Amino acid sequence: MRVGLDVGGTKTAAIAVDESGQIRGRVRLATGWGGDAVIQTIIAAVRSLGPEAGIGLDAISSVGIGIPGQVDVRTGRVEHAVNLGVASLELAAAVEPALGVRVRVENDVKAAALGAYELHGGSGSVAYLNLGTGIAAGVVDGGVLSRGTRGTAGEVGHVSVDPNGPLCRCGQHGCIEAFAGGGSIEARWGRPGALPVRDVFDAADAGDPRAIELRAGLAYGVAAGVRVLVLTTDVDSVVLGGGVSALGARLLDDVRAELAASAAASPFLRSLALEERVELLPAGSPAAALGAALIGAARDPEEALAHG
Amino acid sequence: MRVGLDVGGTKTAAIAVDESGQIRGRVRLATGWGGDAVIQTIIAAVRSLGPEAGIGLDAISSVGIGIPGQVDVRTGRVEHAVNLGVASLELAAAVEPALGVRVRVENDVKAAALGAYELHGGSGSVAYLNLGTGIAAGVVDGGVLSRGTRGTAGEVGHVSVDPNGPLCRCGQHGCIEAFAGGGSIEARWGRPGALPVRDVFDAADAGDPRAIELRAGLAYGVAAGVRVLVLTTDVDSVVLGGGVSALGARLLDDVRAELAASAAASPFLRSLALEERVELLPAGSPAAALGAALIGAARDPEEALAHG
Repeated sequence: MRVGLDVGGTKTAAIAVDESGQIRGRVRLATGWGGDAVIQTIIAAVRSLGPEAGIGLDAISSVGIGIPGQVDVRTGRVEHAVNLGVASLELAAAVEPALGVRVRVENDVKAAALGAYELHGGSGSVAYLNLGTGIAAGVVDGGVLSRGTRGTAGEVGHVSVDPNGPLCRCGQHGCIEAFAGGGSIEARWGRPGALPVRDVFDAADAGDPRAIELRAGLAYGVAAGVRVLVLTTDVDSVVLGGGVSALGARLLDDVRAELAASAAASPFLRSLALEERVELLPAGSPAAALGAALIGAARDPEEALAHG
Repeated sequence: MRVGLDVGGTKTAAIAVDESGQIRGRVRLATGWGGDAVIQTIIAAVRSLGPEAGIGLDAISSVGIGIPGQVDVRTGRVEHAVNLGVASLELAAAVEPALGVRVRVENDVKAAALGAYELHGGSGSVAYLNLGTGIAAGVVDGGVLSRGTRGTAGEVGHVSVDPNGPLCRCGQHGCIEAFAGGGSIEARWGRPGALPVRDVFDAADAGDPRAIELRAGLAYGVAAGVRVLVLTTDVDSVVLGGGVSALGARLLDDVRAELAASAAASPFLRSLALEERVELLPAGSPAAALGAALIGAARDPEEALAHG
C-alpha cells in the first residue's frame, strides 16, 4: 500500500493507494504550526490510517509527501514553507524513522500535477494550474513531471501580463498571481470574510463595480496562465485546481469567456481551441495526495512517473 | 555522413556532419520560390556537397531539413511556409527519391533549438529563442526536443504581455512578437532600409524618440520571452538566435539591462539570475542545419535526441 499526504496550511490529508491505483483509505487532520508540529501531524495522519481505514504501518510500502515550499526531492528537505511556519526542515529524514518506510517529499503543486494527470486518465500531457493564495503550475507529459533545473518550473504566476497591472507581492506589476491569486484578490477587496473570492463573485453578481473589476481580473489572469502554458508547452489540457477553483462553473465560465474573447480577436489563438482544453479538477479530488503517493513509490525521485 | 539543411527565405544552407559530430562540409544556395523550386534547391544543395566539399551522395546516410512552417515530422509534410511561397508540400516524399536516402523534416526553429543545445555543450536544458521576422522558441531538455501535442510548443511570441501594447499580426495586442519581432519593428518604424532593426538601433543612438521607444520595446519583448521560458520550463539557459540577434552585444546588453531592471524590483526574479542565463548564439553558427542533421539521423522522428 502506497501512502500519499497533502500537507496544507490548515489540513493534512493522507490517502492509501493499492497496487492497482485504487484509493483504499483517507484521513484528514488539522496541520500543526512549525516544523515539529508538521512532522507530528504527518506521522499521526499515517498512523491513523490503521484505526480509520484498517491500513497498518506494516502494510505500507512507501510514503510520499506533498508540501507547499521549495523542496529538494533528492534529500527530502523543505524550505520556505511560510504557510506552515517552516523556514527549513529535513522532512524525509525526520519522518522516516517513525514510520519505518521510505519517505519522499515534493512541492504540493508538483505533486498535484502528477495526481491531476492520473485522475485525467494517465495519458498525453496535462498542465495543472493551481489557483490558491498564490498561483503556480506543474506540467506532466507522458507521465513524467517537469521539474526544471532549479525547481522553478511552473512558476507562471510570476509572468507579468500587464506592466500597468496590480503590484504583486513579488515586486513586479501585473503578474498573473497579482490578477488572479486568492491572496491578491483578498487584499485588494479589503473586506473581511471567510471566503473572500466567493464574496467578490457574489458582490459582482449584485453589481458592485469594484467586485466586477476584481472578478474580471481573475478571469484575465487565469486565461493568461492557460495561454502561457499552452503556448510554451502545448499540453493537451490545462486542469484548474486549488482553493479558488472551488468556485466551480462560476470560475470556469468566466475563464472560458475570456479565452473566447481573445480567440475572437486572433485566428491563431482560435486555432488552439483553448476553451476546450481548460477544465476543472473534479471537486474533492485528492490530486496532491494521490500524486504524492505516486512520487513516494517511484523508483527514482528525480524521474517521478505516474506509473513508476 | 549526416546532412542537415536550413531552408530560409533567401538562402538554403547544407552541412555534412560526421559520426563524431564534426562539420565536414558546408554549402549555401539561393532559395527558389514555391514548392517545386524549394525541392530543387534542396536537391541541388545536397548534390553540391560533392564538388564543394568532396562528399558524394553515396557517403550520405541521412538528410534532415529545417524549414519555416508547420511540419508533420512523421510524414515530412510542410504547411504554411509563407516565406517560401509554399501552402502545402509533401517535402520528404519529393526529395527522398532524388537523393536515395531517408529524409526527415522539422520546423526550422525547432531544428535550431536542437542545434543550439548541441553547440551549447549537449547537456542540461536549453531554450532557443528565435528573433526573426516573427518570434518563436524551442526547448531541449536532456537532448530531447519538446514538440507538444499539436506542434505549437514554443509559440511564446504570441503570449501577450501588455493589453495596451502594439497590435500583433495574430490579432492580439501586446504580444511578445508585436514588441520584438523584426517584422513588427519594421512596420512600426515605417522607413525603408535593408536592415530596419539595425536602423532603429542607430537612430536610437542618435536620439530619435520613436527609435528609442521601439528599441526599448524590443528589449522589453525579448526579456518577457526569457521570463516566460524560464518561469514555465526552468531551463538552464536561454540562447538568442535568428536574424535580429545579429545585432550582437547591442541587443544582448539591452535585454540584460531590462532583465536587471525587473530583477531590481523583484527579489523572486533576482533569485532566478536571468541575466546570467541569457546568451547569444555565436554569430554564424549553423544551428538549424546542425539540428536538422541530428533529426535526420535520429532513430525515431518523434523522439529526436541530440545524440540519437
